[in-house]
This record gives sequence, structure tokens and C-alpha cells, in this order.
Amino acid sequence: MDTAFDPSLQHWLDLAGIFVFAISGALLAVRRNFDVFGIAVLAAVTGLGGGLFRDVVIGAVPPAAFTDLGYFLTPLLSTVLVFFLHPVVERINKAVNVFDAAGLGFFCVTGTLKAHEYGLSLTSSVVLGLATAAGGGVLRDVLANEVPSLLRWDREIYAVPALVGSSAVALLIHFDAVRPSTTLTAAALAFLLRLLALRYNWRAPRAWHRRSAKADTEAAGPDGNLGL
Amino acid sequence: MDTAFDPSLQHWLDLAGIFVFAISGALLAVRRNFDVFGIAVLAAVTGLGGGLFRDVVIGAVPPAAFTDLGYFLTPLLSTVLVFFLHPVVERINKAVNVFDAAGLGFFCVTGTLKAHEYGLSLTSSVVLGLATAAGGGVLRDVLANEVPSLLRWDREIYAVPALVGSSAVALLIHFDAVRPSTTLTAAALAFLLRLLALRYNWRAPRAWHRRSAKADTEAAGPDGNLGL
Amino acid sequence: MDTAFDPSLQHWLDLAGIFVFAISGALLAVRRNFDVFGIAVLAAVTGLGGGLFRDVVIGAVPPAAFTDLGYFLTPLLSTVLVFFLHPVVERINKAVNVFDAAGLGFFCVTGTLKAHEYGLSLTSSVVLGLATAAGGGVLRDVLANEVPSLLRWDREIYAVPALVGSSAVALLIHFDAVRPSTTLTAAALAFLLRLLALRYNWRAPRAWHRRSAKADTEAAGPDGNLGL
Repeated sequence: MDTAFDPSLQHWLDLAGIFVFAISGALLAVRRNFDVFGIAVLAAVTGLGGGLFRDVVIGAVPPAAFTDLGYFLTPLLSTVLVFFLHPVVERINKAVNVFDAAGLGFFCVTGTLKAHEYGLSLTSSVVLGLATAAGGGVLRDVLANEVPSLLRWDREIYAVPALVGSSAVALLIHFDAVRPSTTLTAAALAFLLRLLALRYNWRAPRAWHRRSAKADTEAAGPDGNLGL
Repeated sequence: MDTAFDPSLQHWLDLAGIFVFAISGALLAVRRNFDVFGIAVLAAVTGLGGGLFRDVVIGAVPPAAFTDLGYFLTPLLSTVLVFFLHPVVERINKAVNVFDAAGLGFFCVTGTLKAHEYGLSLTSSVVLGLATAAGGGVLRDVLANEVPSLLRWDREIYAVPALVGSSAVALLIHFDAVRPSTTLTAAALAFLLRLLALRYNWRAPRAWHRRSAKADTEAAGPDGNLGL
Repeated sequence: MDTAFDPSLQHWLDLAGIFVFAISGALLAVRRNFDVFGIAVLAAVTGLGGGLFRDVVIGAVPPAAFTDLGYFLTPLLSTVLVFFLHPVVERINKAVNVFDAAGLGFFCVTGTLKAHEYGLSLTSSVVLGLATAAGGGVLRDVLANEVPSLLRWDREIYAVPALVGSSAVALLIHFDAVRPSTTLTAAALAFLLRLLALRYNWRAPRAWHRRSAKADTEAAGPDGNLGL
């Protein structure tokens, strides 16, 4: 069966994921000194961007973000909270990290399930699960004119927990074992991996540098010329 | 009824909006020292990007930008004009502002109407009206590697006039009063609000800073680390 | 007839194009010091981004990038090669240039053909051929927080070879002469033009500067304020 959760439960968990992702977008906007509309736009893009990309790719248009009023109101709620309470919210960065990891876990699960419902292969569904979980944050960083955290070496790993969660869901689909309890376990797995990565500063390796000094100098250069 | 304007009038006004938005993209490209193809690409992205996003989201593919030759030729015309006459065009910045505000007014109206024609709710249609009016400028700034004007505190408000225009159209749809005269009034409302914002330097508030000195320092930092 | 190549030949050439574009993305990621997931993401975006944009615009969803396992594995292969061998790959930059030009030639041809198959006009198909060939590189540069090479004055021309190749295909379609031999000739034409541009440093003109000193100063400024 295709519906992994009680629809009502899925809906509320989805909104929770959007809410915490939107908080992270709004906080970045505050630190970049954006005005209140910039905060709202960055919150909405962060919370809804990953799902919007997934829905456009699989042909589920208009996307859920534009057909459900709750999807629209949730980033606004995040904006209002951050606008008035951002010093408090910043102080509870650890709590935000926990919620963000929860959003990651839930989005990689629902992204994978929805992609498979629309006929994609299991491999493609796993990739779209990752894109759903990571896409909003990438858009957030691009709009704020920063290198996406997802790509940076000096940030804790984000892709691995999402890929583990998505792959677990793909296995559940393959073995016809998609049930609320099993999919929630997959979400919890991604959630815990992300928390562990943050706790122990797990980072992914960079390319093997035979000429690392030279490469670092080049990386610091303003050019990035590929010689192309 | 769904067609707000005489189709021919709507088409010409649409092209006028694309034309003035493309001018703003081409001017930014000139100032960033791009070559003639960079100017053309940035002009096309600025003029067509908002409508392209709207059409992909509502499933109106292929988008109008790829089915109407006029949509293709208009940004090229802007490119040619700016390429040869840009010192003159820069001197008439005030005129460009007026045309840009006119484009804003018209795009938020047509964006809202088209989204509603494709079955979106009034709230979603208002959001897509804003996205249609602001999307091209955001893409322009992202490609030019700048923080989008839409988000920045030190720019006059852009979202409010577009939201007022889109919301006015939503009210017209709700009360079944979509007629050329009323929709043109909504466009004029957004247009005038934007002109007033420019004239009196209306800016939107930033988040309430209890620790504003610290926050400003952080905002200037190269990191933008969310602590995530 | 619509299929320009033996489908199997087209498929392999398509994968070759993705492979070399993904190499250029992975190399940029290494120079920007991204971790292994950043390398994989940038390789995939560069190799698949242009085709993904084209497929979403023409309504060919889910895009080929998500329905063919080879499209998914090819950027991973590029990532693995660059991750372990990047000092060697950098030394063979000239070979990369040749392969990148081959990818450009092939992508502008297949992009134009696929757009026309989906009912777009010849003019729009040419534009989508250009977007297919150049889109992946633009996304690569945006994610790496750089000004896209496509737009920059100080890079050899990229748009002209792609436009020539796409236009040649449009002529072939118009005269009902789409055959493997003729389309491969169009791809070779774009390929050779790009190689000549690299060899002789062909660059496109910038806008005519009556006040060039002032314009250069402005271009170097941190603001880019359009006065809008």
C-alpha cells in the first residue's frame, strides 16, 4: 500500500518539517539583515523548496505547496516567531538543530514515498528523497548568496543521513513493508544519524590531495577558472 | 469570466512588462561588465523568469515564453537597445523605474489571474502573482551573484505593492468583478504604491534587535553559520 | 522523422555528454574544497541540469534523468574518477576541454530535436537547445557561488557555438533532412567552433562604453545598485 501513515498524521508531520526548515531560513535572513519580507521569502523557500522541486519533477502540479493552505501559513508562522523572538530562537539553536534533523528525517521519507507513488524507480525515488530533504536548504543558501552548506567540507554531513533514510524506505517498498511503524523507524534512523553527525562533528572527506598545498591556494583564489 | 482584458490588449501589455524588466536585467549585465551574450541572457531571464516559474508550477507547459515569438524577441530588443544606448538609458533611470513599476503592476495582475484560471485557490493565486512579478528580478540577481533586491533591507519595498495588486485581483475574482476596467485599476494601484515607495524611500522593518550591535556584526561576518 | 540517431547510439552519446559535463562540475567542486558529497552533487547538477530544465519546460516529466539508471550512474562515475584522480584530470585540462566541447555539440543537437518533438516552434527549439547545452554549467556556477562563465566577458564564447549547432538542426528539421549523418555534422560544427574559440581566445564584445572608465569603476563596486 502507498499511504505510509495515517493521512492526518502525515499531514501534521509534514507541516512540522516545513515549520522547522522555515525557522532555519528565517534565522539566516535575520543574520543577513534582510527586511521582514526577505525573512518571509527565505522562510517559505527553505520550508517549501524541496517539496516544490520534487513535485515539479514528478509532474505533481500544482504542487502541494500551492493547494494546501497549511503549507502557506506555516512559513508565515515561522516568520512571525523569528521576527519577534529571534534572540530567544538563536539561543535555542540546539533545539532548532533537533527539529531540523527531524524535518530531514521526515522529508526524506515522504519524498521517497511520493516519488515512488508517481511511478519512479526505487533508485530515482531515493535521489528525490534526498532532493526533497536537502533542496530547501540549498535554495536558502543560494538566495542568501552563500555556498550551500550541503556542499561544504566544513559542515557536518547532511547527505548521508538523508540517503540512509531514503534507502531504508526503498527497501521497505521493495519488501512490501511500508507501514506507519516501519516508515517512522526509517525517519528516526535518519534523524538519529544527523544528530550523531552534529554531536561528533562527522565530516565527509575531500578529494585526495597529492598536491594539497597548491590545491588549497587555488581554492582560495578569486577565480575558480577551470581552464575551460 | 476569466479573460480580464481584451486578449490583444493583454498581449501588448504583457510584452511591455517583459520589455521593461528585460531592460533592468540588461543594465545590470552592462554594469557587471558581461559580454553581449551575458546581457541577452540576463535580459531574457529577468523578463521571462517570473512567468516561466508560474507556468511550470501550474502545469501550463510549454510556457508562454516558448510558444509566442513576441516573448522571445522582446528581450532581444531590450538587449540591442541597452547594448548601444546604455549611457542614455542609465541617464533615464527614473523612466526605467516608472516602466519597471508598470511591469510590476501588470505582472502581479496577470500572474494572479492565470494561476486562478488553472484551478489554484485565491490565496495561492495571490502568492503566484507575487512570484510572477518578483521572480524575474530574483533570478537576475542570483545569476549576477548578488543578494536579491527583493530580500534586502536597504531597498525600497517591492513585495507590498505586488501583494496589494494581487490581493485586489483576488477580491475582484471573489466578487465576480473581473473586467478590463477593474483589473487595470488593480494594476494601477500596485504601480502607484511602488512609485510612492521609491519616491519616499519606504522600507520594510528588520527583525526586532534586542542585541542589534551583535547581530550587525554577525551579519557582516563571512560565515552566516546557523549553528546547524 | 524524429529520431535523429540510432536510439542506442544517441543514448551512448548522451551519456558521454553527461560524463564530460559532470567531470567539469566535479573539478570545480574539488577546487572549491567541497567534500565528496559536494563533488557528487555538483557533478550531477552540471551533467543533468540542462536536460532537466529542458524536460520540465516541455512537460516531459518525469525527466529522463530520473527514469534511466545510466543517467544516474554516469555522474557518480565522474565523481569517483575526479575524487581519486583529480591531479591527473587537471593536468589533462585540454582533453577535458575537448570532451566538454563535444558535450556542448551533442547537447545542443539533442536539446533542439527533443524540444521540437514536443511541439515547440523551431525558434523556441533553438533556444531550448542552447539552454540544454549551457544550463548545467550555469547551475554549476550558481551553486559554487560564482558568476556563470556563460555571462562573463573574460571567457571564450560558449553561446555562439551552441546557437550555431541548434540553428543548423532547426534548418535540418525545416528541410526534412534530419538523419544521423546530418545531425552529427551539426554537432561537429558546434564542437569545432567551440574548439576554435578556445584556441584563438574568441571573446564576445561588451556594451559600447562612451564612459568606459566610469562604467568599469561601477562594475567593480560592491553594490550593483540599479537605482531602481
